[in-house]
Amino acid sequence: AVLPSSFAASGMRFISVDALLPSDDFKPRHNSGSPAEIDAMVSVAGFPSLDALIEATVPKAIVRKDGMNLGKYHEGMTESQFLSYFKAMASKNKVLKSFLGMGYYDVHVPPVILRNVLENPGWYTQYTPYQAEIAQGRLESLLNFQTLVCDLTGMAISNASLLDEATAAAEAMTMCSAVARGKKPKFLVSSKCHPQTIAVCKTRAEGLGLEAVVVDEDKFVYGKDVCGVLLQYPATDGTVSDYKSLVAAAHAANVKVCVSTDLLALTLLTPPGEWGADIVVGSAQRFGVPMGYGGPHAAFLACHDEFKRLMPGRIIGLSIDAQGKPALRMAMQTREQHIRRDKATSNICTAQALLANMSALYAVYHGPEGLKTIARRVNGLASVLAAGAAKLGHGVPSAPFFDTVTVTVKDGDADKYVKLALNEKMNIRKISSNAVSIAFDETSSLADVDALLRVLNCGRDAPFGAAALAPAVEGGVGPFARRSAFLQQPIFNTYHNEHDMLRYLKRLENKDLSLAHSMIPLGSCTMKLNATTEMIPVTWPELANLHPYCPPDQADGYNEMFRDFAAQLCSITGFDAVSLQPNSGASGEYAGLMAIRAYHLARGDAHRNICIIPVSAHGTNPASAVMAGMKIVTVSTDAHGNVNIAELKQKAEQHSKNLAALMITYPSTHGVYEEGVDEICRIIHQHGGQVYMDGANMNAQVGLTAPGIIGADVCHLNLHKTFCIPHGGGGPGMGPIGVKAHLAPYLPTHPVVPTGALPARPADPQPFGTMAAAPFGSSLILPISYAYVSMMGSEGLKMASKLAILKANYMAKRLAGHYPVLFTGPNGTCAHEFILDLRPLKETAGIEAEDVAKRLMDYGFHAPTMSWPVPGTLMIEPTESESKDELDRFCEAMIAIREEIREIEQGQADKENNILKHAPHAPSVVLADKWDRPYTRERAAFPAPWVRQAKFWPTVSRVDNVYGDRNLVTRWATAESAEPVAATA
Amino acid sequence: AVLPSSFAASGMRFISVDALLPSDDFKPRHNSGSPAEIDAMVSVAGFPSLDALIEATVPKAIVRKDGMNLGKYHEGMTESQFLSYFKAMASKNKVLKSFLGMGYYDVHVPPVILRNVLENPGWYTQYTPYQAEIAQGRLESLLNFQTLVCDLTGMAISNASLLDEATAAAEAMTMCSAVARGKKPKFLVSSKCHPQTIAVCKTRAEGLGLEAVVVDEDKFVYGKDVCGVLLQYPATDGTVSDYKSLVAAAHAANVKVCVSTDLLALTLLTPPGEWGADIVVGSAQRFGVPMGYGGPHAAFLACHDEFKRLMPGRIIGLSIDAQGKPALRMAMQTREQHIRRDKATSNICTAQALLANMSALYAVYHGPEGLKTIARRVNGLASVLAAGAAKLGHGVPSAPFFDTVTVTVKDGDADKYVKLALNEKMNIRKISSNAVSIAFDETSSLADVDALLRVLNCGRDAPFGAAALAPAVEGGVGPFARRSAFLQQPIFNTYHNEHDMLRYLKRLENKDLSLAHSMIPLGSCTMKLNATTEMIPVTWPELANLHPYCPPDQADGYNEMFRDFAAQLCSITGFDAVSLQPNSGASGEYAGLMAIRAYHLARGDAHRNICIIPVSAHGTNPASAVMAGMKIVTVSTDAHGNVNIAELKQKAEQHSKNLAALMITYPSTHGVYEEGVDEICRIIHQHGGQVYMDGANMNAQVGLTAPGIIGADVCHLNLHKTFCIPHGGGGPGMGPIGVKAHLAPYLPTHPVVPTGALPARPADPQPFGTMAAAPFGSSLILPISYAYVSMMGSEGLKMASKLAILKANYMAKRLAGHYPVLFTGPNGTCAHEFILDLRPLKETAGIEAEDVAKRLMDYGFHAPTMSWPVPGTLMIEPTESESKDELDRFCEAMIAIREEIREIEQGQADKENNILKHAPHAPSVVLADKWDRPYTRERAAFPAPWVRQAKFWPTVSRVDNVYGDRNLVTRWATAESAEPVAATA
Ligand SMILES: Cc1ncc(COP(=O)(O)O)c(C=O)c1O
Ligand SMILES: Cc1ncc(COP(=O)(O)O)c(C=O)c1O
Ligand SMILES: O=C([O-])O
Repeated sequence: AVLPSSFAASGMRFISVDALLPSDDFKPRHNSGSPAEIDAMVSVAGFPSLDALIEATVPKAIVRKDGMNLGKYHEGMTESQFLSYFKAMASKNKVLKSFLGMGYYDVHVPPVILRNVLENPGWYTQYTPYQAEIAQGRLESLLNFQTLVCDLTGMAISNASLLDEATAAAEAMTMCSAVARGKKPKFLVSSKCHPQTIAVCKTRAEGLGLEAVVVDEDKFVYGKDVCGVLLQYPATDGTVSDYKSLVAAAHAANVKVCVSTDLLALTLLTPPGEWGADIVVGSAQRFGVPMGYGGPHAAFLACHDEFKRLMPGRIIGLSIDAQGKPALRMAMQTREQHIRRDKATSNICTAQALLANMSALYAVYHGPEGLKTIARRVNGLASVLAAGAAKLGHGVPSAPFFDTVTVTVKDGDADKYVKLALNEKMNIRKISSNAVSIAFDETSSLADVDALLRVLNCGRDAPFGAAALAPAVEGGVGPFARRSAFLQQPIFNTYHNEHDMLRYLKRLENKDLSLAHSMIPLGSCTMKLNATTEMIPVTWPELANLHPYCPPDQADGYNEMFRDFAAQLCSITGFDAVSLQPNSGASGEYAGLMAIRAYHLARGDAHRNICIIPVSAHGTNPASAVMAGMKIVTVSTDAHGNVNIAELKQKAEQHSKNLAALMITYPSTHGVYEEGVDEICRIIHQHGGQVYMDGANMNAQVGLTAPGIIGADVCHLNLHKTFCIPHGGGGPGMGPIGVKAHLAPYLPTHPVVPTGALPARPADPQPFGTMAAAPFGSSLILPISYAYVSMMGSEGLKMASKLAILKANYMAKRLAGHYPVLFTGPNGTCAHEFILDLRPLKETAGIEAEDVAKRLMDYGFHAPTMSWPVPGTLMIEPTESESKDELDRFCEAMIAIREEIREIEQGQADKENNILKHAPHAPSVVLADKWDRPYTRERAAFPAPWVRQAKFWPTVSRVDNVYGDRNLVTRWATAESAEPVAATA
Repeated sequence: AVLPSSFAASGMRFISVDALLPSDDFKPRHNSGSPAEIDAMVSVAGFPSLDALIEATVPKAIVRKDGMNLGKYHEGMTESQFLSYFKAMASKNKVLKSFLGMGYYDVHVPPVILRNVLENPGWYTQYTPYQAEIAQGRLESLLNFQTLVCDLTGMAISNASLLDEATAAAEAMTMCSAVARGKKPKFLVSSKCHPQTIAVCKTRAEGLGLEAVVVDEDKFVYGKDVCGVLLQYPATDGTVSDYKSLVAAAHAANVKVCVSTDLLALTLLTPPGEWGADIVVGSAQRFGVPMGYGGPHAAFLACHDEFKRLMPGRIIGLSIDAQGKPALRMAMQTREQHIRRDKATSNICTAQALLANMSALYAVYHGPEGLKTIARRVNGLASVLAAGAAKLGHGVPSAPFFDTVTVTVKDGDADKYVKLALNEKMNIRKISSNAVSIAFDETSSLADVDALLRVLNCGRDAPFGAAALAPAVEGGVGPFARRSAFLQQPIFNTYHNEHDMLRYLKRLENKDLSLAHSMIPLGSCTMKLNATTEMIPVTWPELANLHPYCPPDQADGYNEMFRDFAAQLCSITGFDAVSLQPNSGASGEYAGLMAIRAYHLARGDAHRNICIIPVSAHGTNPASAVMAGMKIVTVSTDAHGNVNIAELKQKAEQHSKNLAALMITYPSTHGVYEEGVDEICRIIHQHGGQVYMDGANMNAQVGLTAPGIIGADVCHLNLHKTFCIPHGGGGPGMGPIGVKAHLAPYLPTHPVVPTGALPARPADPQPFGTMAAAPFGSSLILPISYAYVSMMGSEGLKMASKLAILKANYMAKRLAGHYPVLFTGPNGTCAHEFILDLRPLKETAGIEAEDVAKRLMDYGFHAPTMSWPVPGTLMIEPTESESKDELDRFCEAMIAIREEIREIEQGQADKENNILKHAPHAPSVVLADKWDRPYTRERAAFPAPWVRQAKFWPTVSRVDNVYGDRNLVTRWATAESAEPVAATA
């Protein structure tokens, strides 16, 4: 002992270096469970140790043995280490002022929305509002969004968000084809559309067997084979055109007119709905959502009422509850993939709810007058710039424009001006060899115009200042000026000061159950901890304020992260390359299948178009396969819920020549580690097919096995499940795909920022096309997943998988005596989720899964996944980040509900008039002066001790879905109607 | 018109430069009211225009006419402009690693607490929990804090926070004097205390007529005149001593032993309570609160049970509610200034609730084992450093130490090593000419030890590494090792993963009404908008992570802000200089009076010690005057609530020779712009007195008049009122004082970082001493007020005052027909607040102010200020940032309650068993199976339409204050007791 030594050694100890390591370790904050708790759960699960349970669960053949090396991230950083490491990386990005436009604009995110929505787990950890009674807050906000879109576009009905403007345009194309019942394969795309929109439409058309023809608008020919046209309004060069005669001609030929537009411009411009558009799409990004190097932000699609059953995506509608009071919920779900599967209007599932909410709230905060003020200012700055450019001798547009001015430079050297702009720390767009275009946004200023004039004056101050010039300049949009009012509803004319806004946000938040309240044990959705440290970088300006098409050397920080994160994902999946472009799981499926398609095509196997999909597959699987031009052959499951291998073999043989792919989820959608999966992969490969793995259940695989080990060729990763991106009430998400080397060349690229496989770039890329507007999808949220992996390290991740499996097995064992557990593996274990069979209760007590789901709300819990993949069941997925205490509370609720059901079975309670059928119990019901229920109010509202500690109240009684679809209302009336008629307690 | 010109001019307009100014103007977000709404309110108030109302309200003699020039801040910046301007300023701070110790340590703020408490308006906009039924969340958290302090110090009872460690030590001194009934004026302060603690005790002793003698502990002499001693444990040089015999000697002489200590150290060290300390104080900063260049953070004071009635500050206690269920509330309020006035135990009012909550939550998150791990690590690093220093030939302590090692450098040149450390971007402390001391914290690392060894090796790598050295080093604290367990309560052993913690935070938050729910119209407290943009910088690392005693050139950003903000305040107040040291209004009063005292002393007027205070003054006024050694002479108010000028004149004459000061609040605490205030000032000045203005009501003055214009010599500004610092549930606050030039020389300084008057530094400073631990008080929250002023600009601020006055008058007029309005000015107007007289209702209906206050909760509102300054009244202050809609809702609630009272008056309702006496109605009550009340459940819980939209529930029934004080419980039992027994619905 060196020192200190002069005093008694009592209480002294030698120091281990381990004890000196940083103490803010993330792993125990995410992976919940003390050794004692783990022991207790293991023992209930019936195993001597956690490892024994895992060994009994994961099939020998696919066990991962290589240690999952994560390189410099292998040990896992502590929380503060990660934040300072990543701060240094992020600051390698260079944030220049952006005048690039093309659908992405810098914004002032209103701070009250930034802090209380985007930085608030009460909002961002919400799930998709399937359980409407505990989701009236975000449903109201999404109805605001739909109202906003309808009013600004002049259309009848809008959905509640799509992934981005380009895919929204592709969805519009799909709708046009559907209107024509698939009989008109041609779709005309104006050459004045944004390049990314053109690229995505072309790619999408290919998979669908359509043809997207890019052509000048004045050369449109409305042949019999043309289902629709796509215009951009204002055009990508900024100009605004009169489309009345074009629309007339198109309609005369029964061709539908789709318009991609800009919401801010529409506050000043005559909306497309008023000049005849049939479908209108666009991005709401510039309504208060940062550019984020490409996303996430909400796109929209609005259309005439007659096409509403063909619309993609979620649509929120007004209905009534069991008391006849107004209540909101998702409408017309029969259009969607989770019900209609391969006949669905699209494959979209996770969309952009959180960002749609931010945009709607931005409009609520500014109101119609505030929005117009912003728009006039943007237009004014553009007009002054144009005037100045003309004075300097450059060519400027003769047509009206809104915010973007295309300047034909007098010396014909566009590159020169782009470089001069860089000197001013500004990005402008080279739109052709002799023209630049300059787009303004709400953050632009007169000083910016002066700087831009300096650019246009070859680096010297212009002989006149912008402010001096302004009063002589005419602004506005000339003959295109909008005459119709918009956003006259009270909701858009009430909350214009910060206090009122804050309280509105809080009221909405408090109606909605989120992970900030209790576990959301949704099977297949992996609602795990979205840790604060993971979320912090999302609002760093170095990440938030980058335009996706800025010169790549300005995105060094992002690029380093993409490289490192892609390498992490390769190691985790056992794959060779990754594409970060798809921004949802369903998009990943589509991208993966398109890569498979391209692979077959490249080998001359154009005829390979059969995709085998188990009946138990998620609805996105068949819907995506259709989009990739594949024909679906289903294969059934056996009594144990496993893929029927004999049948699979038979079908693979039958379709051997044309077999393109198998889609398989692993562990299965039934929550089981199927034993035969390696065999299944071999069968498919034998017949020349590729194995597409649906990675929704990766949370049971990480560190224990891997798609690449199992034998898959491609797999998507729902980063909003296994990798901690919060669900946001129905998006954002990310669905990158990993592939084996042979598929890497086919990964998607981008027309503005070429990309492809990461980290290894194949020598000979043959990308299948472009599938999203941004080269790396929703880049701004990738740090969430990157942070998760970097802080967990290899062992932390592996432990997460083990604990996820342990907790599912613990709960299954606790509940098995009360409800039958459907499907387990050979050793009686489930994977990370399990299914409770409620069907017998229908017989014995008239109780359905929905009744149990709604009654759970009274206990303060969100229901598990209901009636999927098996009707009449609940699928429970606890995740590693829930504590044993929380699992126990949930089990106790389920057991107590079982006892409530028993009372019906035993005749103590009525079959109809009982506490389950009336669930959930809103305050207005349990507080009503009259009470004639056969159970007490207290039992209705306070069925468990923890509810007394902190009651979460559903704000409406059970919502009537049928009524809402019969009486479709998807926007607020302009009338005097009180604000949220739908959300009374 | 220059361009574009080629298309029709319809819809075009010329561009005004104004329309091109940035659009994210802050003023309309803060100042609520459209022109139409303002007109409507003006007309109800009975005036033709807003200006007419103001003219009728502000006495001509004091009207401000100079335009209130704010220099470069005059126009007001937009939100984004301010953030980027201030970001650039803040980045002039240089954040070096701090090893300075002295009570301030770098920390890892757990991100889940950072985001969900410090960055969450649901927490930070709460008011002091006087209305217990809607404050059970923070009351629980504060009980956690008290439990934490008691357990770690080994003491019986703790308060719920004090301002800082140094003032806490001074409060302990005051207690010792009180224990001796003021008969023992000497207080011995160990020379091993921190310098700021010594300075504050000495200054405080002066005002109180005590003598704080700084002396070596081994030279303590326990004379008959000695009331107490103060020790630092561990000492400022890091060493730990055995105080058992010292305590025995002191106690033998009936001398009390105070100990200033460190909570983290106490996880390893035998707590002072176990070796005989009587009073223990310290700072909880290092429990999860950033250093913030000095604050805010929570100090604590704990003592033996027998001294509890002498304790300063708020104390939370357990009681029962009307149903007999456990409920928390503030205990033993009769000690406090708002009740006991000049006999109070201290002048403290606003303390550090938010920071106490953060510290308590830090302990909840880490638990006892987590805390010990952190402490052992810190101690281990210190031990390795000591060992290394010794190996390098330096002198190291022979006594045990916890985290701080004082190294006697071998070449005797401490300065040299401080400079070498700067090269490593580290701050170490020069503790004497030949010694440096180095303090470790939870953010320190082995790499830091290596760097420090390099410093001690004169800039060259030491020939051995820290990691290599560690295993041979003994750590620990030797004979001082703590043997007793602590924090065994369930609350400290449950929430150790992020999900559980997040939900605990959310549950607590959701029990408490804050400005995020509805207006909090507290007269005299000015609960206005705490805007997000103002709050954003508070968690910037450039501001948060600075040690207050770092070399001043590392704080250039802060210093620039201090200068600019002080200049803003000078302009606003009409004063010449400012001190930013006081960190509450009460501290400002004390500082201002001490400056007046020093001024009189300097002029040889030592006898001037009379302070005239109107009876209507806030309790802090007399309590502060006592601390400044003044004798109080009260002056009454007349029938109109104004100061009785004749009486004032008479008393001023009577005490002319000894007159020191007048304390006066303006507008008066009755909410009236008294006409005679200028005359009052003249009278006082005639008699050689100074005018102290209590600035609590500055929100009615800014831009319309000013203390300097009115004639005051000094004034404090509660920045947590007029200047937007959120109340935090009872702190933090800031109370800078402004003074006329003649008082500037006497403004306080600091022993480590000399300061004084800002911005003008008088040539001949004669500071009265030091009154806070940090040179600039709670620097970290000053940006909030600085942002407010900078964004509002001169006109925005003036408009805020006008709107505040308008809104008070509007409400007064709306309510006047229902409740008598007490006190108005000559034109029948009130200032920014007004008093409703509820005393007649006692007679007519048996209803008291408290009943109305509690019933307001059922309507979703926090009560106005109750029974102050006039018993039996409610004082309402709406502030400029509340919308007319919100004011109307509040008025409607008050009117509806008046109708409920009328039912009692008219005999329709019972005098005892009625809806007011039973208020508030907790869910468990209105949902009870049995209901025998003479009114309906719905009426109880849903008395107004907005409550149905979003009900805020009180979680307990009316709290029994008397029971709680009779059965005092101020900490959680160690027993098995369930977590928050007190907080059941
Ligand atoms: C098994 C499975 N596959 C695919 C998806 C679709 O993923 P996303 O919602 O990200 O499009 C889901 C989503 O729930 C799923 O559970
Ligand atoms: C009139 C008046 N003076 C003084 C104070 C004390 O200020 P602080 O709480 O900041 O110490 C208050 C606080 O409410 C007050 O209303
Ligand atoms: O606590 C007060 O602010 O009076």
